[in-house]
Amino acid sequence: MKLRPAPEWQTTTWLNTPEPLTLEGLQGRVVVLHAFQMLCPGCVAHGIPQAQRVADLFKSAPLTVVGLHTVFEHHEAMGPASLRAFLHEYRVRFPVGIDAAGPDGDPMPRTMRAYAMQGTPTTLLFDARGQLRRQVFGVHDDLLLGAEIGTLLLETEQRTDATETISDELTPEPVGLARIDAGRSYKVGN
Amino acid sequence: MKLRPAPEWQTTTWLNTPEPLTLEGLQGRVVVLHAFQMLCPGCVAHGIPQAQRVADLFKSAPLTVVGLHTVFEHHEAMGPASLRAFLHEYRVRFPVGIDAAGPDGDPMPRTMRAYAMQGTPTTLLFDARGQLRRQVFGVHDDLLLGAEIGTLLLETEQRTDATETISDELTPEPVGLARIDAGRSYKVGN
Amino acid sequence: MKLRPAPEWQTTTWLNTPEPLTLEGLQGRVVVLHAFQMLCPGCVAHGIPQAQRVADLFKSAPLTVVGLHTVFEHHEAMGPASLRAFLHEYRVRFPVGIDAAGPDGDPMPRTMRAYAMQGTPTTLLFDARGQLRRQVFGVHDDLLLGAEIGTLLLETEQRTDATETISDELTPEPVGLARIDAGRSYKVGN
Amino acid sequence: MKLRPAPEWQTTTWLNTPEPLTLEGLQGRVVVLHAFQMLCPGCVAHGIPQAQRVADLFKSAPLTVVGLHTVFEHHEAMGPASLRAFLHEYRVRFPVGIDAAGPDGDPMPRTMRAYAMQGTPTTLLFDARGQLRRQVFGVHDDLLLGAEIGTLLLETEQRTDATETISDELTPEPVGLARIDAGRSYKVGN
Repeated sequence: MKLRPAPEWQTTTWLNTPEPLTLEGLQGRVVVLHAFQMLCPGCVAHGIPQAQRVADLFKSAPLTVVGLHTVFEHHEAMGPASLRAFLHEYRVRFPVGIDAAGPDGDPMPRTMRAYAMQGTPTTLLFDARGQLRRQVFGVHDDLLLGAEIGTLLLETEQRTDATETISDELTPEPVGLARIDAGRSYKVGN
Repeated sequence: MKLRPAPEWQTTTWLNTPEPLTLEGLQGRVVVLHAFQMLCPGCVAHGIPQAQRVADLFKSAPLTVVGLHTVFEHHEAMGPASLRAFLHEYRVRFPVGIDAAGPDGDPMPRTMRAYAMQGTPTTLLFDARGQLRRQVFGVHDDLLLGAEIGTLLLETEQRTDATETISDELTPEPVGLARIDAGRSYKVGN
Repeated sequence: MKLRPAPEWQTTTWLNTPEPLTLEGLQGRVVVLHAFQMLCPGCVAHGIPQAQRVADLFKSAPLTVVGLHTVFEHHEAMGPASLRAFLHEYRVRFPVGIDAAGPDGDPMPRTMRAYAMQGTPTTLLFDARGQLRRQVFGVHDDLLLGAEIGTLLLETEQRTDATETISDELTPEPVGLARIDAGRSYKVGN
Repeated sequence: MKLRPAPEWQTTTWLNTPEPLTLEGLQGRVVVLHAFQMLCPGCVAHGIPQAQRVADLFKSAPLTVVGLHTVFEHHEAMGPASLRAFLHEYRVRFPVGIDAAGPDGDPMPRTMRAYAMQGTPTTLLFDARGQLRRQVFGVHDDLLLGAEIGTLLLETEQRTDATETISDELTPEPVGLARIDAGRSYKVGN
């Protein structure tokens, strides 16, 4: 199976970041992109808090959480000023890009269209090569999302280690587990 | 880093399984062991439901969820008959072993002692070689547990594939993601 | 103790109702007023769903739930168009009035100021005489709110019954309980 | 409507109280009786915590919360020693009586049978005269339970006040609201 690189995001304004983020610029890192609307109840109750928890829990891993404001309805109610107030009130700290408006007559913004998203919330996972590996519409399960992240992080580490000599290739260093949650680990039997 | 194989479980009765399970017998599979007491509120509210969800979500993966009833207090209230009624009422379907009572004067059962568990709930993760890779006391976070499972599953798959010729070793087949949740996948950009 | 009638609300637009509501016009009914802001996380997660549940559970009782949009910050992000979209997306069905903007230089709207509300969410309970009987800032407990509603409803019924001859004044008809949840009642011992 | 006094409870052991409680002995107080089984998931997750919250929130009101252990299945797993451990682990502090076993061949205990309870959890509300006013099978809604409690408490206060001269009988002292939650009250417009 060969995956082609995913289409680049098309955004206008960015919030919570000094400069715009691009998929290409994030190569080498796992990317969890959360597409949401600020007036989408499922996003507010589940998707955004989940994205924030991912950002907090994996902050020392090579992983970046990105928000994408994909407004496809009630455009007048979800402009940049409203979004800015929303992010402030909900204590959203990860970077959020505003999806660029579609061409005339298309209520769906450009990145949302390019990825054929079905609605909000949508979670997209990109591996460290910038390839889209998962796209889930609706509330995504924490256990499954975690498993997908764990898989992509281990792949990332193995790519990084590939130039080193590996004496026992069947026993990869369990760096994934250690790095994920070093502070809470309690190991028996080493 | 070399991990030595973890100590074998010491159990008496098993429920929800036609025959006893052993760590050795489960080699080749990731094992999530949930140590609990039926009258431990944190186990009932969080740990056991989490273990059941892991069992359900990863049922087609090479992963087995095992319960271990590690009674170290109120022994008279948590005997086998009580446990059987508990598992029935709470719809626990994964196999559960009863940790063998400790030697005279030790309220802590044998497996609990061998792993130096601090209390219940405790979650233990074993890789496909039977090595203990994680031991967490208390309520474990779904995202982190998922990430650890994802890592161990990918390792398992790579071991399985190791006898095959891999033409592009830096692009492992993303079987982990696909296998985890095939039904909910929605892929763009293939 | 004598309570003076509470100050009348000062509103501009009303949503979810064909005509504006006034405290005076609601005399004879218990009124639960929920003051909120659409970008207030505590209102969205707790206060508004609670108000909607009160409206649904007590719909056959002489009780009216009223929302009041008391914007005192981020005014540009919470105008009428935004509020309309919000009520639509969150399926809010009870009437909502927009608190009238304060005089020059006052970010706090007029009704919020008149009642000296400390912030949002705030719950106000008025008895059937239009007297303010409770004002709670923050998330209000369901059991306590229910108890206050039960008390005010029984008072309302007793006022209604006051012109009738009551033979056994120490045995009030338990109409309150019956009316509240007739469908779920299961009576033994009549 | 005339309600006859409800049948007296038939219990064996009592826990969390120096002496047995009886319905007759509690006359003058509202009684919330929570019938449960320690291995009933709905009781553990919802009913018992709700009963404990009622006990805590209304501790200064003339109201008593009573637990009744109505075991009708898995008798061997829910004996007095198990119940005692359960109450300890779950921090249940209100008095709990053990329903007396039924006559030969009847798995249902005596009080459960006398009240024709359908299962557990069941919530029963008695007014200050010892009359059964509500019996709800299943998880009971906090708002509705609160409303029922508020109604019965106001009735209780009115009975108490009945020997005094009431000058303005249409304006009962709003003691119910004040007494329920004095510490959290914030009154405007007195």
